[in-house]
Amino acid sequence: MSISRLQKLILEKRNPTVAGLDARPEYVPPHIRAANVEKYGRTLKAAAESVWEFNVGLIDGLSEIVPAVKPQAAYYEVLGPDGVDVLKRTIDYAKSKGLYVIVDGKRNDIGATATAYAEAYLGMIEFEGVTLRAFDADGLTVNAYLGSDGIKPFTKYCGEKSIFVLVKTSNKSAIEIQDMMAGDRPLYRVMASRVENWGADFVGEYGYSNVGAVVGATYPDELKLLRKVCPRTFFLVPGYGAQGGTAADIEGAFDREGRGAVINSSRGIMCAWQKKNDDGRNFVEAACEAAMKMKRELNAYVMMQ
Amino acid sequence: MSISRLQKLILEKRNPTVAGLDARPEYVPPHIRAANVEKYGRTLKAAAESVWEFNVGLIDGLSEIVPAVKPQAAYYEVLGPDGVDVLKRTIDYAKSKGLYVIVDGKRNDIGATATAYAEAYLGMIEFEGVTLRAFDADGLTVNAYLGSDGIKPFTKYCGEKSIFVLVKTSNKSAIEIQDMMAGDRPLYRVMASRVENWGADFVGEYGYSNVGAVVGATYPDELKLLRKVCPRTFFLVPGYGAQGGTAADIEGAFDREGRGAVINSSRGIMCAWQKKNDDGRNFVEAACEAAMKMKRELNAYVMMQ
Repeated sequence: MSISRLQKLILEKRNPTVAGLDARPEYVPPHIRAANVEKYGRTLKAAAESVWEFNVGLIDGLSEIVPAVKPQAAYYEVLGPDGVDVLKRTIDYAKSKGLYVIVDGKRNDIGATATAYAEAYLGMIEFEGVTLRAFDADGLTVNAYLGSDGIKPFTKYCGEKSIFVLVKTSNKSAIEIQDMMAGDRPLYRVMASRVENWGADFVGEYGYSNVGAVVGATYPDELKLLRKVCPRTFFLVPGYGAQGGTAADIEGAFDREGRGAVINSSRGIMCAWQKKNDDGRNFVEAACEAAMKMKRELNAYVMMQ
Repeated sequence: MSISRLQKLILEKRNPTVAGLDARPEYVPPHIRAANVEKYGRTLKAAAESVWEFNVGLIDGLSEIVPAVKPQAAYYEVLGPDGVDVLKRTIDYAKSKGLYVIVDGKRNDIGATATAYAEAYLGMIEFEGVTLRAFDADGLTVNAYLGSDGIKPFTKYCGEKSIFVLVKTSNKSAIEIQDMMAGDRPLYRVMASRVENWGADFVGEYGYSNVGAVVGATYPDELKLLRKVCPRTFFLVPGYGAQGGTAADIEGAFDREGRGAVINSSRGIMCAWQKKNDDGRNFVEAACEAAMKMKRELNAYVMMQ
């Protein structure tokens, strides 16, 4: 799916939220973990299958509310090959429910290796005369420290798929590198211009290109500025909720029609059951409630047309 | 294993080479692919198991010659969960043969997510009271565009394990971002200083720290300069061979004792059988020959003490 399709889903659901699927095993309710330990012992397989059941519940509940999900690769890789298998199944299942799926992998490399990452997450490979797809997500986050050699292999798939390039991340120490003055502008501004240019050939019906940017909710002034200087770059905005970003902070990520951005929440939705002080058997309801609350908050600031 | 252990292995084998294990299925000799297609059909499983057999042969042959191997994560991820399973088995097998194993993943994120990557590749997680390890390599390449929040979770493991931070990559467009003037110095110089500082608490017996840097062989002047300004930073040097770097180019990566760097070759060793115009049944011999040739070339320029 292209970024236009994501924008359409956002408008249909009146909700510019992407729900992070970033489960550490301890975020999974105890009854699910216990059942899998029973089945597979205290193994990475049990941990991975626990995350899988958790994800299925979340996807089933959230697919009515949010347009997109964002599994973070690290939380699957930490469970080894079994975890990566759950990443694959999670992507497939979320797509089957009509969700737009962004793999948050922040992948980066050059030439043939960047090509392999692009083939892995967005494209396909040829093997003995057949075409095979490894993960086949809709979008992937990437890091452009290596320059355009590291981005071009991904944009090959940006006719239909999307990438989101790290521009200004949500963490405190983002400033150490990203705010260094590079000539007359901070580095993140330079990166933003490059992203805007990389996307020039991939602009869809809402005026946004399939080469998006990651810009943190925790830097609201920069968010507003970047919205102005990157009119065709769609923003993936982390940092809402747990990291401190508020609905007021993210207002500037959107254009006048209330388009052009999607706001991530991971723990705020996923771990909502833990705030209820119960046994987690209603984790889906808790997640849906949290997602509905976030939707209302965002709609108070973003007038989607 | 720490960077000191890698340096020791280099001195023992008189060879500062790390062999890349970056097999695309088409690099695997046809008889291996055919046998796996017979067994598993034209599937990602067949492709992955072909790469596994290829890696086992390479590791068996090369473990007498080189001190280290570097599987590039992208080439395993492109084969899906089966490929990632082969990555895990490759790491384990190479370690069992006494090799130092660097996963080239260029991972990067912040806080809890960076912690998950660190736990995945260098550390362990706790699950239901037991300690489990996902990939457990000796080293991992990382990208520091997110600043020190993105590095600290990895250095937690740098008492025993190592990371290699991208400083100056080997590709042509590396200059687009990395050579921007950040104040009075290009960005890669700033990054190099940060790396040198991040490593301060992790210096081992040869005077090198477990926080290393990736510096491309294709920029010999920068390599020489960085060797001077980063006296305790061990260099992982890509770009030798296929990308154009020569033995003369990498001389500057080493200190006066001929220490402090390891030079990567991937296709030059792995794909040596393809240059012989034969059927690939002798791919191990071809790889070993290429590795011996590289060892001789490096020894002509690097006087290891």
